Amino acid sequence: KTPPLSRQLSFTALLLAVVVCRATQDYGYKDVEEPTLGDSQYGSLWPLPQKVQMSTVAFKLSGVSFQIVDAKESSSGASCSLLQNAYRRYDEYIFPISRMQGQNKKKAFASVSELQVWITSADSECDNYPSVTSDESCECPGMMFVFLVGALSQVPINRTEIQDFPRFTHRGLLLDSSRHFLPIKVILANLEAMAWNKFNVFHWHIVDDPSFPYMSRTFPQLSQQGAYHPYTHVYTPSDVKMIIEFARLRGIRVVSEFDTPGHTQSWGKGQKDLLTPCYSGASPSGSFGPVNPILNTTYDFMAMFFKEVSTVFPDAYIHLGGDEVDFSCWKSNPDIQKFMAQQGFGTDYSKLESFYIQRLLDIVTTTNKGYMIWQEVIDNGVKLKSNTVVHVWMGNKFEEELQKVTEAGFTTILSAPWYLDYISYGQDWQKYYKVEPLSFNGTDAQKKLVVGGEACLWGEYVDATNLTPRLWPRASAVGERLWSDKDVKDTNDAYSRLIQHRCRMVQRGIPAEPLFTGYCAHEYKGV
Amino acid sequence: KTPPLSRQLSFTALLLAVVVCRATQDYGYKDVEEPTLGDSQYGSLWPLPQKVQMSTVAFKLSGVSFQIVDAKESSSGASCSLLQNAYRRYDEYIFPISRMQGQNKKKAFASVSELQVWITSADSECDNYPSVTSDESCECPGMMFVFLVGALSQVPINRTEIQDFPRFTHRGLLLDSSRHFLPIKVILANLEAMAWNKFNVFHWHIVDDPSFPYMSRTFPQLSQQGAYHPYTHVYTPSDVKMIIEFARLRGIRVVSEFDTPGHTQSWGKGQKDLLTPCYSGASPSGSFGPVNPILNTTYDFMAMFFKEVSTVFPDAYIHLGGDEVDFSCWKSNPDIQKFMAQQGFGTDYSKLESFYIQRLLDIVTTTNKGYMIWQEVIDNGVKLKSNTVVHVWMGNKFEEELQKVTEAGFTTILSAPWYLDYISYGQDWQKYYKVEPLSFNGTDAQKKLVVGGEACLWGEYVDATNLTPRLWPRASAVGERLWSDKDVKDTNDAYSRLIQHRCRMVQRGIPAEPLFTGYCAHEYKGV
Repeated sequence: KTPPLSRQLSFTALLLAVVVCRATQDYGYKDVEEPTLGDSQYGSLWPLPQKVQMSTVAFKLSGVSFQIVDAKESSSGASCSLLQNAYRRYDEYIFPISRMQGQNKKKAFASVSELQVWITSADSECDNYPSVTSDESCECPGMMFVFLVGALSQVPINRTEIQDFPRFTHRGLLLDSSRHFLPIKVILANLEAMAWNKFNVFHWHIVDDPSFPYMSRTFPQLSQQGAYHPYTHVYTPSDVKMIIEFARLRGIRVVSEFDTPGHTQSWGKGQKDLLTPCYSGASPSGSFGPVNPILNTTYDFMAMFFKEVSTVFPDAYIHLGGDEVDFSCWKSNPDIQKFMAQQGFGTDYSKLESFYIQRLLDIVTTTNKGYMIWQEVIDNGVKLKSNTVVHVWMGNKFEEELQKVTEAGFTTILSAPWYLDYISYGQDWQKYYKVEPLSFNGTDAQKKLVVGGEACLWGEYVDATNLTPRLWPRASAVGERLWSDKDVKDTNDAYSRLIQHRCRMVQRGIPAEPLFTGYCAHEYKGV
Repeated sequence: KTPPLSRQLSFTALLLAVVVCRATQDYGYKDVEEPTLGDSQYGSLWPLPQKVQMSTVAFKLSGVSFQIVDAKESSSGASCSLLQNAYRRYDEYIFPISRMQGQNKKKAFASVSELQVWITSADSECDNYPSVTSDESCECPGMMFVFLVGALSQVPINRTEIQDFPRFTHRGLLLDSSRHFLPIKVILANLEAMAWNKFNVFHWHIVDDPSFPYMSRTFPQLSQQGAYHPYTHVYTPSDVKMIIEFARLRGIRVVSEFDTPGHTQSWGKGQKDLLTPCYSGASPSGSFGPVNPILNTTYDFMAMFFKEVSTVFPDAYIHLGGDEVDFSCWKSNPDIQKFMAQQGFGTDYSKLESFYIQRLLDIVTTTNKGYMIWQEVIDNGVKLKSNTVVHVWMGNKFEEELQKVTEAGFTTILSAPWYLDYISYGQDWQKYYKVEPLSFNGTDAQKKLVVGGEACLWGEYVDATNLTPRLWPRASAVGERLWSDKDVKDTNDAYSRLIQHRCRMVQRGIPAEPLFTGYCAHEYKGV
């Protein structure tokens, strides 16, 4: 019997996830039409860790006796259900079959029998929510993992040492549950895949013009009237709680977005007088525009609504939207016109927008939440708290916007080049992969303000039927860009790893679409 | 008790399928962002029949007692398993739930209790394969269906009379099982969806450069060596038989394509000396080019191989490919050069290609099969039998190609504008829908030679994970273009029907992707 792996290793586990990667040929994918690419020396590692040292020392991993356990020295262990859940999850990834079949087999070979997880951070954060303010790389200095590799009962593995930390702290994915309702299981499946790709923020664009699936305790009429269906196309408080907990266990923050004052048509169905009545000449046309910014009732509503939201969603940030406000309805409304005159706004409706947003921000500030907003809010000159996160999404000249936003001293995240709903023929993952978020002109201090980015999959053309394969592995390219070192940009190497990573996702039950002609080795494994 | 529906109706059933459509709001899809489109007067009918007369006479359809039966006068009935299978299939579509729950319920309302199917054609073709030579509209003159509508136990329906026949006889779909292996169940599911969209030809692009999944009895080494995996990534004779029978029961022909002399890299793995050795200077480079056209063994092989194929695939046609032959390898080979000189071909390698194809066509002719070929074969001046079907695929100026091919007197089918693998953002189904296959310059006689078209989903970027939602409902647009009258081209009306048709496909288990923002009514049915 060889000694347990613990003797050779020490661990600091990133609480976000216990990461166990397979670096063998198990996930080999044969690409038969393009010039044959050499396999990456990094096997199927994705995203590529900051430092990988592979040795030639080989072990065998026993599927019968192997287990992941808490190291004695660990600051967190059996009482940490987050860790225990992660052990179980990765045990199942490594041994999808043999655990059930091999319980009683005698051990035939000397082999590695344990992976000991040693949490060295003083605060295990086991029962907390992941947060943006607690910087990952600072929490986990000198992390070292041994990435274990194996399948079925006996697989030779190389000892590998990995030091890892993320380049950016905000690695998000936006899903839109308003344009199409996304069943809970679709959201959970994609949270799972997010964890495999080291995304740590689920930006939940939960409501928008088309539907209001968020079931509010304070204002139940919002989903009663505004959801596609009041019972089946809603997220109940329990649903939301489950999604947040499922995410938490995988080191993923859930940042909800309640976008106002535009993109709010569905709000108006259940909340009288919230939206601006549009006029056709001298009389109301019957249609409605953005949130009505001139009524006190609007702000009373927002205060109560965001008070609820701030308790339902534990994350320190709320995304307040603020994009694409159409002024035409405001312009048509005589009451709004009068208000504009009173306030001395002239005909500059962006001043009215700012008026609304400023009051909204004050309201949200009282909930002790930070806020994220889309770039228009700052473009329109709204005064923002210094810890506001500005979300850059406009495709045109995003480098200039990053320069501008960071020059003004604001933290920012980038989505502009990562709108995954814009599909095109071929390997568009390469386009996402080649983006360098810090390529703009700016000082080091400015660049530090770019804390990450988000891949966005808006919902016009995706629902439960096609969302998952459309998202993966295209989003994986963004995942590596946001995690790995800036010098990790060899597309050929990435291709070789990504085809294996994609096969791994497929094997684990996520129907990630193929990158190109070929097949996954696991497709015929065990035959 | 009202009289059975038979008293009011007479049927001539198209053997291709017993078509029962739902024309109610059951499949309503709420589109909430685009300008509200009026519901089509044709409900969810897709593709639109040639003639629809809806009356205001309403019936109720009893889910408890309703059944589809053979009319007494029918020329085909209980002994026709094709018909009986179709009855069962459509019974399950109409009553997905109530059959199981409602067997013992007493009938509460007077209602329609029977759909009688009256086959009037003398030859029922129950045990035959569908064919291209038996023109559908000629076989079934004056067809009249009553399209029944309903769901669950008691649903009011309008009496509707439909006369229908296809505009084009060849309505095909190409799937590629070489670039990615397609599991049997994926193929079967898509054959099912093809029937719902009145496609009647499954063009099975079964082998190509990347892999050779067709298991040949005569040359087992071809898949043994050439498939992605010799056991799991192959279509056994039983698999092929099952697919053909599943298709036959749905009125779908299976036209296999064995593409030569190019696109044959995978053939070379299991068949020595079949491919041309490429040279690097004076010596073989180790790589191989197209089929070697100068060896007698090549033609001996092809004769045996296509003899087998002609018995395995019952359809009267085989697709012989002939596209994209790369001459560089032939040019490099000194034996080929010598042969070229002997034959007096000079340096015109298209003459060598023609030499090969002409001999291949002679071989296939001895099997009594007709053949389809890609357009290059005729472009390169190969002599063809008059009943050859030329497949136009090149996107550039396909109208001119149609003009040229039909001017030469050849039957042709069109795929150029319907390469569904070329994805793009938004509602690209409209692009496919707007194609008018007969828009080229030509006489009436020429236009009659265009017998249809095929939607092609090449396999570079699709496999079991994403094929089905990428294909449907985009292919449905091609389905209606090939079935319905040329004047059926109102995109708004089509949109209204297609969103419902798409929801119907989803409800029946095909994950067809959404056309746009919204939801399917059935998503919350029964709640």
